[in-house]
Amino acid sequence: MSPVRAGVHAEAATSDAAWLQAMLDAEAALARAQARAGAVPAGAAEAVTRAARVERFDVRALALAARETANPVVGLVQALTEAVAAQDPHAAEYVHRGSTSQDILDTGAMLVADRTLRTVRADLTRTAEALAALAARHRDTLMAGRTLTLHAVPTTFGLKAAGWRQLVLDAERRLADVHAGLPVSLGGAAGTLAGYLEHARLAGARGTGDGSYADRLLDAFAAETGLARPPLPWHALRTPVADLAAALAFTAGALGKVAADVQSLARTEVGEVAEPGGGRAGRGASSAMPHKRNPVLATLIRSAALQVPVLAAGVTQCLAAEDERSAGAWHAEWQLLRECLRLAGGAARTAAELAEGLEVRPDRMRENLRLTGAQVVSERLAAVLAPRVGRAAAKRLLTAASAEAAASGRELHLILAEQPLLDGHFTAAELAALCDPADYTGAAGPLVDRALPPADRGLWS
Amino acid sequence: MSPVRAGVHAEAATSDAAWLQAMLDAEAALARAQARAGAVPAGAAEAVTRAARVERFDVRALALAARETANPVVGLVQALTEAVAAQDPHAAEYVHRGSTSQDILDTGAMLVADRTLRTVRADLTRTAEALAALAARHRDTLMAGRTLTLHAVPTTFGLKAAGWRQLVLDAERRLADVHAGLPVSLGGAAGTLAGYLEHARLAGARGTGDGSYADRLLDAFAAETGLARPPLPWHALRTPVADLAAALAFTAGALGKVAADVQSLARTEVGEVAEPGGGRAGRGASSAMPHKRNPVLATLIRSAALQVPVLAAGVTQCLAAEDERSAGAWHAEWQLLRECLRLAGGAARTAAELAEGLEVRPDRMRENLRLTGAQVVSERLAAVLAPRVGRAAAKRLLTAASAEAAASGRELHLILAEQPLLDGHFTAAELAALCDPADYTGAAGPLVDRALPPADRGLWS
Amino acid sequence: MSPVRAGVHAEAATSDAAWLQAMLDAEAALARAQARAGAVPAGAAEAVTRAARVERFDVRALALAARETANPVVGLVQALTEAVAAQDPHAAEYVHRGSTSQDILDTGAMLVADRTLRTVRADLTRTAEALAALAARHRDTLMAGRTLTLHAVPTTFGLKAAGWRQLVLDAERRLADVHAGLPVSLGGAAGTLAGYLEHARLAGARGTGDGSYADRLLDAFAAETGLARPPLPWHALRTPVADLAAALAFTAGALGKVAADVQSLARTEVGEVAEPGGGRAGRGASSAMPHKRNPVLATLIRSAALQVPVLAAGVTQCLAAEDERSAGAWHAEWQLLRECLRLAGGAARTAAELAEGLEVRPDRMRENLRLTGAQVVSERLAAVLAPRVGRAAAKRLLTAASAEAAASGRELHLILAEQPLLDGHFTAAELAALCDPADYTGAAGPLVDRALPPADRGLWS
Amino acid sequence: MSPVRAGVHAEAATSDAAWLQAMLDAEAALARAQARAGAVPAGAAEAVTRAARVERFDVRALALAARETANPVVGLVQALTEAVAAQDPHAAEYVHRGSTSQDILDTGAMLVADRTLRTVRADLTRTAEALAALAARHRDTLMAGRTLTLHAVPTTFGLKAAGWRQLVLDAERRLADVHAGLPVSLGGAAGTLAGYLEHARLAGARGTGDGSYADRLLDAFAAETGLARPPLPWHALRTPVADLAAALAFTAGALGKVAADVQSLARTEVGEVAEPGGGRAGRGASSAMPHKRNPVLATLIRSAALQVPVLAAGVTQCLAAEDERSAGAWHAEWQLLRECLRLAGGAARTAAELAEGLEVRPDRMRENLRLTGAQVVSERLAAVLAPRVGRAAAKRLLTAASAEAAASGRELHLILAEQPLLDGHFTAAELAALCDPADYTGAAGPLVDRALPPADRGLWS
Repeated sequence: MSPVRAGVHAEAATSDAAWLQAMLDAEAALARAQARAGAVPAGAAEAVTRAARVERFDVRALALAARETANPVVGLVQALTEAVAAQDPHAAEYVHRGSTSQDILDTGAMLVADRTLRTVRADLTRTAEALAALAARHRDTLMAGRTLTLHAVPTTFGLKAAGWRQLVLDAERRLADVHAGLPVSLGGAAGTLAGYLEHARLAGARGTGDGSYADRLLDAFAAETGLARPPLPWHALRTPVADLAAALAFTAGALGKVAADVQSLARTEVGEVAEPGGGRAGRGASSAMPHKRNPVLATLIRSAALQVPVLAAGVTQCLAAEDERSAGAWHAEWQLLRECLRLAGGAARTAAELAEGLEVRPDRMRENLRLTGAQVVSERLAAVLAPRVGRAAAKRLLTAASAEAAASGRELHLILAEQPLLDGHFTAAELAALCDPADYTGAAGPLVDRALPPADRGLWS
Repeated sequence: MSPVRAGVHAEAATSDAAWLQAMLDAEAALARAQARAGAVPAGAAEAVTRAARVERFDVRALALAARETANPVVGLVQALTEAVAAQDPHAAEYVHRGSTSQDILDTGAMLVADRTLRTVRADLTRTAEALAALAARHRDTLMAGRTLTLHAVPTTFGLKAAGWRQLVLDAERRLADVHAGLPVSLGGAAGTLAGYLEHARLAGARGTGDGSYADRLLDAFAAETGLARPPLPWHALRTPVADLAAALAFTAGALGKVAADVQSLARTEVGEVAEPGGGRAGRGASSAMPHKRNPVLATLIRSAALQVPVLAAGVTQCLAAEDERSAGAWHAEWQLLRECLRLAGGAARTAAELAEGLEVRPDRMRENLRLTGAQVVSERLAAVLAPRVGRAAAKRLLTAASAEAAASGRELHLILAEQPLLDGHFTAAELAALCDPADYTGAAGPLVDRALPPADRGLWS
Repeated sequence: MSPVRAGVHAEAATSDAAWLQAMLDAEAALARAQARAGAVPAGAAEAVTRAARVERFDVRALALAARETANPVVGLVQALTEAVAAQDPHAAEYVHRGSTSQDILDTGAMLVADRTLRTVRADLTRTAEALAALAARHRDTLMAGRTLTLHAVPTTFGLKAAGWRQLVLDAERRLADVHAGLPVSLGGAAGTLAGYLEHARLAGARGTGDGSYADRLLDAFAAETGLARPPLPWHALRTPVADLAAALAFTAGALGKVAADVQSLARTEVGEVAEPGGGRAGRGASSAMPHKRNPVLATLIRSAALQVPVLAAGVTQCLAAEDERSAGAWHAEWQLLRECLRLAGGAARTAAELAEGLEVRPDRMRENLRLTGAQVVSERLAAVLAPRVGRAAAKRLLTAASAEAAASGRELHLILAEQPLLDGHFTAAELAALCDPADYTGAAGPLVDRALPPADRGLWS
Repeated sequence: MSPVRAGVHAEAATSDAAWLQAMLDAEAALARAQARAGAVPAGAAEAVTRAARVERFDVRALALAARETANPVVGLVQALTEAVAAQDPHAAEYVHRGSTSQDILDTGAMLVADRTLRTVRADLTRTAEALAALAARHRDTLMAGRTLTLHAVPTTFGLKAAGWRQLVLDAERRLADVHAGLPVSLGGAAGTLAGYLEHARLAGARGTGDGSYADRLLDAFAAETGLARPPLPWHALRTPVADLAAALAFTAGALGKVAADVQSLARTEVGEVAEPGGGRAGRGASSAMPHKRNPVLATLIRSAALQVPVLAAGVTQCLAAEDERSAGAWHAEWQLLRECLRLAGGAARTAAELAEGLEVRPDRMRENLRLTGAQVVSERLAAVLAPRVGRAAAKRLLTAASAEAAASGRELHLILAEQPLLDGHFTAAELAALCDPADYTGAAGPLVDRALPPADRGLWS
């Protein structure tokens, strides 16, 4: 029921099985980290690692068991312990040693995020590259700038595409910042690491009294998972999750801008762009109307852009978690975060397809611009005429001439050329040039040049 | 990753397979309705009905195909047509005749909602019944009324439970209203029913010109699905979906109140209620701390209460859908609505378990009330003393006496009995009675009596 | 910064002063109700009523004082007591007697809601009437039905306007339901009414022990305020507030649909409707572009439609309030609810202006329909041709003929008339009729007829 | 109706007058920037600057006029032009030259944000400093770690306060990042700067054709306002606004964590902290109950924490703005953003008061810890006993001994000392130490040390 993400990598990367595997990876990494830090025998850590394969577990049974304890880790630990014990009874003693559900669930969530963000960011990069090429190719493609649904003054499609690219890069940068800091979770029962230290002390590890064992363990856990080391245990300090959700909401919103524009430009009456219909037979087909090629990619993206911000708001609210572990705020995060990852991931993949295949129609852009005639340069004419004939007279003259142009269908510059008031101020050619939208795109070209990386600029401009 | 709903009926009722079956049911009902209305041969409708069984279809493949057209119906129609054709090539001509994706998807969604609401409402009714029994049993069970986290004045657990029940009934009533009006969706390509009418005209059905065929078809479709008949085609008039989401958000929020109170009362230091731990070994167990019995049911409910309102807000925003079918607002509804149904369903089931098994501890309630001593009746003392000694003097006296009581540990009424200012106004027994919280529960008892149905009242009070 | 509501009645009805007056009205009504019930001298109640005029109070100072107690009532009671005492020292004893901040604030909020809803509902009724007239007048005005931004099949503007009206009526009905049930809040310190009963007992009122005084007091308070009597004290049972927010969110969303459609139809390239520019010079003016008449009313409405649902979600979440009075969830409601009232009120007023002045352009509708030519009836042609020449052949033929029509600019029915395959099946006139969009509006007309009240139907159709 | 922000600096900094002044500042800075860039006479810019004082304008009239154009700038330009003309008719020609409403409104909004963030960040810094002192002072103050509302294992108040401080610093850092990048808005009618360039060309300024004038103008505008220079005109690329809202939502959520904990610890039965009541008589007073000192600061903060995330979600959704200027998404931002600024600002100020005055009660913390007795170290005992007597036997023994301790009221270590199974494994003193919660705080101390800046560490530890 969520086609924006059906079959995309982000869906697989956030499936129940992927989440379970990530939690198993967290358990295995924890055992290896404890082995590195001197609290667990290396062989036991290896045995845990070997057993921690999702295909050995019953995902559905674990999900159901999670209702008993409000989280899936209690059941998972039990099942993992049994799986390890079947191979190596002694090693089973070391499963989840000194640990707590939240360390495993949170670290697993960060691993899921890490794996999902890789693909999301790659899709954003693909999208940005395609948009850079579009912006460069259409640096000077004239079109109507539209504000409050109406033609305003001319712009270029290049500037529009450069703006889209800027937003996509903004999203990529925000995700990259979050991605780089995704931390392991390591706190033990209430964030003091006491359980880990006690077991390490009993095992004769060094530095359990002065914090140095905790340091070593944190470093080792971070190294084993590839995640970052947090400044403090964060069971109830949910910055990593809130940041992630916020960056995903931004991503969906940013892609939503591209989608909103594509839909605005794809309307039957506008027709300035069309979605890639390409090779695949069914893309955009309607069940009732054979002639339609619906902008389905933009539609899918927009559906995600509507959803992710409200989902992410729920995650941000969960910052206000009471105590050392919240009774509910923590639990509310999981599904919301999963949907944020999936939907943003689906939107990013869809945006890449859209950007790479978008059909741009410069001729329709010019035709549409003609609808408003020289009115789109009325701002300019007012500016040019005012110093010659006075502001008020210029305004009166333009209003009258525009009305005549609209009524007669004649071009505005011809009518202006006949105005006695302007006599001697402008040649007919000058008036024609002043009324030409193509000559009134301001800094659109240079803005595109500066926004694009040198390679793209070189290529097309 | 969403234990509040794992394994509950609402989860099964909103699964991919359930959704697909509901859309197949919509196709079959549509064929039968057209048969009733005279536009399709009865045998063809029967063939469609026979083929429309979810187990014959590849759910995953249809989900993936949905990306091509932004909805799963196009692929579904193709697959259903093939399935019918395999049995009866002629009948296959009548699959989805004159129809459009949205008619099927929306009608399917309403069927899913219908099936889910049945179980959600039953769970709410169970919950309300259990709460009625609690309220009756504890009509006079004294406890501290708490405002802004502090003891205020006494109340009774019966009044609290009666309030919970009221909210649960409020939720049930809102769902019942929505449930009764869940409509079929029938509009054809753009909400005019033109496709249906054209096929009916070609088939020689009556009344295709004057609206009477449309009437018959709508009535028949409603009858075949058990859904209601809408006032107008609602492809872009999303009242039914917005209403449903709002009622589900209310439900989750209302149950969230119960959960918030249970958590407040279950805190170690408060200990006035405990969740049912009962027969199941693992309920509420912690992975690290064997002594804990966590309030997991309240935790699960609260996690839903945080989520559903923001999800429902997204659905409400989708009311602002452009054109005869929105390019994105419609598509954003589906997953949001599904999650609302699941989470509210999970919360309702969980609330029933909680209400039926809640352990109430009147002794702890009394002990806790003692913590604030007679301060919880300071409001009363001020009221009683003021007419005798003046407002200001009463206030001064009470402040001093309370301070002395807190410092010395003696009971307030004994200290008051020694105050010269009160001499002759009250006997020692009167002062003791005035300071007794049990004597200051206002209308708690009668309020409970009036809130409960007669049967419950008769049973316990 | 919120022009959608600037200067509209809903803004005044929710101002700081209006809110303060409503709380003063609640205090005065409470005193009168206690007088009716026999616990307060009638003269004192009259004195309180006389003093309870907002112009006597310093709104700003009370707002600032509210920071000390987290609500404005403590300061208000102090100020009101002083104001009463200045006239009648004895009566001052009866201000806020036995009461609590929340009774006053909640009752005040319900009075504010009551006063605001009157105007909101009146504006919705005006809007619905204007839309009924539009629907009737344009019952048969042909236009393109659009789905996923593209022309689908023909529809009528009448059906569109009838749909808008339906949504507006849906909103009005939801507000009316909530409006009728807005309750007084009467609970005392912790919802037991104990303070009220104690004072009444001391004053010698009847029935303080058996609940009958509480009944009389509730009835009298409801009568004095014009509000409803709630089933239970609702300090922590927030159904009335959640219901109100939900109905306002629905209202904003429903009006957002009208706005989205107007914007879609007002686009320069579409031009099928224009906003009322009328007499007022500046309406829709642009600061830079003299030629534009921006759809500002739809813009304002849409801005509200985006906001109210998320604000209302916050209110719904506040249902999960802990204890007998929440430390924060209650306080979060106030400003959210106020904004919901204002924005929905602003949107309703704006919608009335829009609906009453909307300029509809049937000629542009027909022109635009021509853009897609006979493709908008391709659904119909497929239906008609299939039984004659077979489904597959019909599809091939239509695809080829459509392509030829698009390439040559000739009309499709002329090309179809030349097809050997169709020879003898249709006359040229029949083909022309089949290709005429005006002949393919399905049940649009009858649907409009049935949706409108008889008066409107009679007037135009 | 929003006491969390009443009277705080953020309220004044976001008032209607402040917003209007910021837009006037934008107009004045624009004129000066154009003067610097060579397109406007310096004297005219000075005249505009002199006239641009909010006290000369009628805020209310401008707000009402905004309904005509959907934004307040059109009216503002008119009024400003008149104000300038009254002093210097020639200079009036240069008001808003080449500009557009959105440049002024957006730049004004960024100035408002800049001014508000200064105070918000200062309050966060104050809060963090106060929390650092608390964390240092209570580095070793023992208390119960609580998870899912129940005692889990011991922790320290120092670690809790250090965590709060971390969140506050996280918020400050996010706001600082956004603050540093708040950009001017400069795009002209449709984001091409065409109007500015045309006027500059007519005025004979250099570089109007190659983008260098645009560069100079942007630099000068940034310099005159103290804001940053954006990569592209951002009328429809709403990164700055979305980022700001997200950082404010984070801030409110982070402070909400502090509030949630304070409320949890302030409960009557817990009593481990109390809010500052201090010098101000009324702080925390109840209108009905003289004995209460309500946690009003935490209540106010929590009310903001509930609201800002949903408001910010609305802003993030506005990223999906269509065209060169959205008809509604832009307009929806303003009030939402204003409320986000105010509420986050109010919460920050309130948090500073709370952190600086929080009363911590180590004795109550120890008493409460005693409630769970040695159960809070059951995790430890299981770890220590298992290697000696086997896991299963250790578990059985602990369960039985705990039950005996609970039933008899004797201390667990005395009961353990009597167990034959443990004979010879531990001395009585060892068992007493193992059961002492003070000895089981894990790495709490070192974690606090590392989290605090050296100065704080040196001071207390």
